[in-house]
Amino acid sequence: MTSQPIPDPIFTLTTGPVDAYPAVLRGLSRPVLYDYDPAFLAHYEAVNEKVRLAFRSSSQPVILHGEPVLALEAAAASLIAKGDVVLNLVSGVYGKGFGYWAARYAGEVLELEAPYNEALDAQAVADELRKRPDIAIVALCHHDTPSGTVNPAAEIGAAVRAAGKLLIVDAVSSFGGMDVLPEAINADIFVTGPNKCLGCPPGLSLLHVSEAAWDKMEANADAPRASMLSIVDWRRAHEASQPFPFTPSVSEINGLDAALDLYLAEGDEAVWARHARTAEACRAGILAAGLSLWSARQEIASPTCTAVRLPHGINEAALRTIIRDRYGVVVSSGRAETLGKLIRIGHMGPTARPIYSLVSVAAVAGGLQALGVKGIDVGAGVAAAMEVVDRAYN
Amino acid sequence: MTSQPIPDPIFTLTTGPVDAYPAVLRGLSRPVLYDYDPAFLAHYEAVNEKVRLAFRSSSQPVILHGEPVLALEAAAASLIAKGDVVLNLVSGVYGKGFGYWAARYAGEVLELEAPYNEALDAQAVADELRKRPDIAIVALCHHDTPSGTVNPAAEIGAAVRAAGKLLIVDAVSSFGGMDVLPEAINADIFVTGPNKCLGCPPGLSLLHVSEAAWDKMEANADAPRASMLSIVDWRRAHEASQPFPFTPSVSEINGLDAALDLYLAEGDEAVWARHARTAEACRAGILAAGLSLWSARQEIASPTCTAVRLPHGINEAALRTIIRDRYGVVVSSGRAETLGKLIRIGHMGPTARPIYSLVSVAAVAGGLQALGVKGIDVGAGVAAAMEVVDRAYN
Amino acid sequence: MTSQPIPDPIFTLTTGPVDAYPAVLRGLSRPVLYDYDPAFLAHYEAVNEKVRLAFRSSSQPVILHGEPVLALEAAAASLIAKGDVVLNLVSGVYGKGFGYWAARYAGEVLELEAPYNEALDAQAVADELRKRPDIAIVALCHHDTPSGTVNPAAEIGAAVRAAGKLLIVDAVSSFGGMDVLPEAINADIFVTGPNKCLGCPPGLSLLHVSEAAWDKMEANADAPRASMLSIVDWRRAHEASQPFPFTPSVSEINGLDAALDLYLAEGDEAVWARHARTAEACRAGILAAGLSLWSARQEIASPTCTAVRLPHGINEAALRTIIRDRYGVVVSSGRAETLGKLIRIGHMGPTARPIYSLVSVAAVAGGLQALGVKGIDVGAGVAAAMEVVDRAYN
Amino acid sequence: MTSQPIPDPIFTLTTGPVDAYPAVLRGLSRPVLYDYDPAFLAHYEAVNEKVRLAFRSSSQPVILHGEPVLALEAAAASLIAKGDVVLNLVSGVYGKGFGYWAARYAGEVLELEAPYNEALDAQAVADELRKRPDIAIVALCHHDTPSGTVNPAAEIGAAVRAAGKLLIVDAVSSFGGMDVLPEAINADIFVTGPNKCLGCPPGLSLLHVSEAAWDKMEANADAPRASMLSIVDWRRAHEASQPFPFTPSVSEINGLDAALDLYLAEGDEAVWARHARTAEACRAGILAAGLSLWSARQEIASPTCTAVRLPHGINEAALRTIIRDRYGVVVSSGRAETLGKLIRIGHMGPTARPIYSLVSVAAVAGGLQALGVKGIDVGAGVAAAMEVVDRAYN
Repeated sequence: MTSQPIPDPIFTLTTGPVDAYPAVLRGLSRPVLYDYDPAFLAHYEAVNEKVRLAFRSSSQPVILHGEPVLALEAAAASLIAKGDVVLNLVSGVYGKGFGYWAARYAGEVLELEAPYNEALDAQAVADELRKRPDIAIVALCHHDTPSGTVNPAAEIGAAVRAAGKLLIVDAVSSFGGMDVLPEAINADIFVTGPNKCLGCPPGLSLLHVSEAAWDKMEANADAPRASMLSIVDWRRAHEASQPFPFTPSVSEINGLDAALDLYLAEGDEAVWARHARTAEACRAGILAAGLSLWSARQEIASPTCTAVRLPHGINEAALRTIIRDRYGVVVSSGRAETLGKLIRIGHMGPTARPIYSLVSVAAVAGGLQALGVKGIDVGAGVAAAMEVVDRAYN
Repeated sequence: MTSQPIPDPIFTLTTGPVDAYPAVLRGLSRPVLYDYDPAFLAHYEAVNEKVRLAFRSSSQPVILHGEPVLALEAAAASLIAKGDVVLNLVSGVYGKGFGYWAARYAGEVLELEAPYNEALDAQAVADELRKRPDIAIVALCHHDTPSGTVNPAAEIGAAVRAAGKLLIVDAVSSFGGMDVLPEAINADIFVTGPNKCLGCPPGLSLLHVSEAAWDKMEANADAPRASMLSIVDWRRAHEASQPFPFTPSVSEINGLDAALDLYLAEGDEAVWARHARTAEACRAGILAAGLSLWSARQEIASPTCTAVRLPHGINEAALRTIIRDRYGVVVSSGRAETLGKLIRIGHMGPTARPIYSLVSVAAVAGGLQALGVKGIDVGAGVAAAMEVVDRAYN
Repeated sequence: MTSQPIPDPIFTLTTGPVDAYPAVLRGLSRPVLYDYDPAFLAHYEAVNEKVRLAFRSSSQPVILHGEPVLALEAAAASLIAKGDVVLNLVSGVYGKGFGYWAARYAGEVLELEAPYNEALDAQAVADELRKRPDIAIVALCHHDTPSGTVNPAAEIGAAVRAAGKLLIVDAVSSFGGMDVLPEAINADIFVTGPNKCLGCPPGLSLLHVSEAAWDKMEANADAPRASMLSIVDWRRAHEASQPFPFTPSVSEINGLDAALDLYLAEGDEAVWARHARTAEACRAGILAAGLSLWSARQEIASPTCTAVRLPHGINEAALRTIIRDRYGVVVSSGRAETLGKLIRIGHMGPTARPIYSLVSVAAVAGGLQALGVKGIDVGAGVAAAMEVVDRAYN
Repeated sequence: MTSQPIPDPIFTLTTGPVDAYPAVLRGLSRPVLYDYDPAFLAHYEAVNEKVRLAFRSSSQPVILHGEPVLALEAAAASLIAKGDVVLNLVSGVYGKGFGYWAARYAGEVLELEAPYNEALDAQAVADELRKRPDIAIVALCHHDTPSGTVNPAAEIGAAVRAAGKLLIVDAVSSFGGMDVLPEAINADIFVTGPNKCLGCPPGLSLLHVSEAAWDKMEANADAPRASMLSIVDWRRAHEASQPFPFTPSVSEINGLDAALDLYLAEGDEAVWARHARTAEACRAGILAAGLSLWSARQEIASPTCTAVRLPHGINEAALRTIIRDRYGVVVSSGRAETLGKLIRIGHMGPTARPIYSLVSVAAVAGGLQALGVKGIDVGAGVAAAMEVVDRAYN
């Protein structure tokens, strides 16, 4: 019966899957309706409209029924036509990874790369676009989660739009936690997921698609159709009068509905502000505790994730184990190139509240101290985080 | 707040998505764990093992993170190598549909077709395999839901095994509701979903894969990898020590866990028996009410779905609307070729209990009567259904 | 782990505890707040106001934190002063029972009694009040659930008001399922519970108290104070600025909140109409199946409960057992004087929908048939119920 | 719809109602069964047995269907016979309060009183019992929550037993969080509630009753019967074959069942240890932050509640408001004599985990700092708490 001999953690302070809002958990437990029941059809249409409101966009978004890697793979498969030249912008593991998908479909993939603790430069993008006018599509990972760094999406988007190219943006772990809206940054395909800053479980992708992107995908004979990887099949699927290409994930839609109600009721700017404040407090605490941030500069550190550079000689798995065992706190490891070099504290959805920074700073600092790192000051770390929390009121 | 101005139905008696068990709904509302949390890793491994127990199979199954159309598309993409000759067995819309996926990857797709209210014949399959020894793979839809008919999977499986070919079986809407176990029917890839007879929401696929199928997929250079469509990437992903190819659907796994606990505790034979009894009562009631079944013979009528042939001149959408409005009962329409010709009553998971046959018979008969069909006898229908229900005790 | 080796029933068609609405179950699973948390204080006040709206009353109601027997005992203890002459109106077991509580506190308890399958007569009440002008308080059980019969509350209330007396009304199992509102019937203390027609679990009482009743209770030195039985302690407890006499049942309040949202959104008259229709269909079905009603006349049969007279020689426990075993349907037995003479089908909250009448008629008729009663016609019963269901649309 | 314009807190660190375990919330959302359904009867009996296991007692406990003030009032009303001399032991507000109930029923109530930041002395109790051999019943509040102090229950119990008297123990907020078991401390009536250390919502009382207490209550003609205040009516009500005196709180029983499963699976000593560790860390942090404890000595400070003495001139309501507004943390105020003099941090159930001490210390210290108290050191406080947390592993 009990499939979990290991006790559940007390705090899941990860970069996703994240702790879900209680209202989302209740949403997930709603009775399951038949997808063609008129109540569900109307519900689905209403949820899609709420995504549009959250996107502040002018056209209806698309919900795909798999976690955001589905949407990213589908975007590559659908938008990139044979022979297309793609400029892939890379400042981390996830940006790099998109290049592999792009290479499956593109004629050529160019890459502009920043160090994995740095951000891309919009001017460099503009220069590259001038140099290679044959570029058709630019791909950007806004928040490269394995590094906890954010790129200047609006500036890059403006440069791409000015050059008349199409832009794919991976905003999976940034949307909902900071000011990144698809039309404001000129994204043609914008991918996010409810399982990060919206505080839902993983299982869905949310996409904004521009008219230009729809046109290109529909003209692309190789774009997946009658496939799990299809985007075009779902263009009108949110309309109550239209069929679903296949069965939607009914319960995930119910969870998303609850999350969007919370998000829209609180107001996006208020939500973004608490993400930013939590991250700021966390960074202040980490530094004051005697530790270092991974990101080269605080300006590019993500409001939804704080990557802490590991002191020399520390085994990150051992660190995460001791943090969980002693404090019941779960944080994320790095990925690929960043694995072993950092650990990451998520500030997403329900945990994007400043008070959590005390827990995360204490847990990470305490864990390192327990592993024998010298010069850690837990008290100073927490006090510095607390000061940021209090500053909002002073 | 209320995204549903249309009231929820009272009874969802569909062929999927189906009503979920209350324990599954509670499972879905469990806190969301980080996928790499040791508690979740152990939990995932334990759930995978429960799927194996439910499959009564000798090797670990695979869970894919999308509803079963993902698994079917992935099976076609992974198992069928360039140039393979595939024999697609067709007795309905879903069997036919698999042929389109097969054609994307195969050298040649042969089809053996039965009328859509009939079942395939194992001898004909054996004959075809003898005629065309170059066939590499046979594909069978066990229960073609849009027709509500079942094919003799064990006999066909034996013929395919005898001929040394590989067999793909779509058991999406039959597994869990009747005696169809992957190894017993010699399936090499066996696809089902928790969103039918296990009483979960849609969002996952469950697969059994034989050693021979693993060998062929791993040898197939074109089998999807680093893709949502990959099966091979997930071969060892259930092991707590192994990484997930991408983020699993945490909450759906929690729901599945609860469903498997119910299934294994009740005992598969007991579960199958109540599906069979419910369907038998439903068919008896439909006939006694003066209506006709879609299936040519009761022997091939599915224990998990009763397809009722519509009287001449009846608009099926109008029928489903009147049934929902008057009685709060939701049933399924046909699909493609069967759309408009029948309506389908699901007996899956929580609604696979004999007493529901009274509701479905009365609702369908009542709806047709309300639409002006003459000669309907609601009372006789319900009485006949009741007699089957009671027969178990006499 | 599994504390229930006995499987859960499929349909709980009882007179309380009743099946709860899914939204109520989700409400019960909301996080538990501290009772003095400002969010909870505001929530409690808001829920109290929703009770007032449901009561359509002019003053704030009182919520007591125990199921309605608490409120009834508390009403007797609080309103009846030493020496008071109480007229207890009796048409069933619950009305009779109130007399025992009344006798603890009153100087004298008079009773006006109708047979337990009949209703009281307002004229007789008026006559008694004229005969005994020393009567201070009249007590009425509106719907005597063990009989499934309703008394003419409005007429009796008018008579009591005309005589200048105070009226205690037990509307536990009628409010929310029919037109019985505290001020409209001139009740001075009106007791109901969310665990009947509102579709909540048992655990709370809802009271309307008139100004006159407040005055009398506050003047009554013997009225319980600093006690679980106190009503006066709670007079202002719903105000966010006031303390709770003791800790309120937080989760039950959350469940009640969800139930009231449903009730107010659907509209009370619509809710009453489906209770009435369900009961009418059930009665028609029971009669057509060859069975008898307990109530002497259909006009007094409750819209929230149908009491079926048992055929001679039938053991009611055996009947309920066979109905549950065969059909998964749970119905209620009689109580005290009616125990063994009838079984009761509840039409309360979520099961107060006409389609359920088919299930209940078939189950009761089927169970009696299984016990060997001759002349039962399940089909005729269900057909007659169905006719009532359909009549609303013809 | 939204009855809560005030956002929910982030951390409820109160002394009750407390945050409930997620598994308890899911338990509360189980379908509601009819109380006389055989599945519920068996379930209730099983839950009662789990209470017995948690009590480690030799006889079946009693569950009353109201929060523990019901059980305390009922204990006074049931056990104290007219003319009985009762010795009420007082070391705080709740102990004092019991005296008022006792006085309603007793011939005489004697009180032995300790200052409200101190504990009672077992020797003094023994002396008093010698002085007044006519004492029949002794009443003890084990953990006087408004003071956060615990009395030596085992020693006092031994003294009372040695003198041959009956002992009523209020262990409402101590049982489940520390080593206090009814038979081990010789309690004759032992009252606790699931809404404290077991992590359930308020709404039930759990009682152990000794044979001697049963005998006295059953012999007491004035003990409540057919009343919400009755204990004797419930003596055998947990047996599946026995009727309930009135409808039990079905959903609360479901929540309790889940809580007991957690408690018994974790093991009581492990649960007590984490309560103790959390309180110890909290006290260390409070002191290191420059604040004072209410309790005169750490040895008598409760493992389930830390009472912090307020600095001079601090308004406690203002403090709780600022703590909630800034940090989202809810703590408890004092009660009656202690109101305004202290605030209380609960360590009960899910929040009785050491990591929470960091949050509570930071929040309380931060709040006082924000109100202008000088000399507060948040960092030192958290560091000291952390040291206690870590000490368990060093």
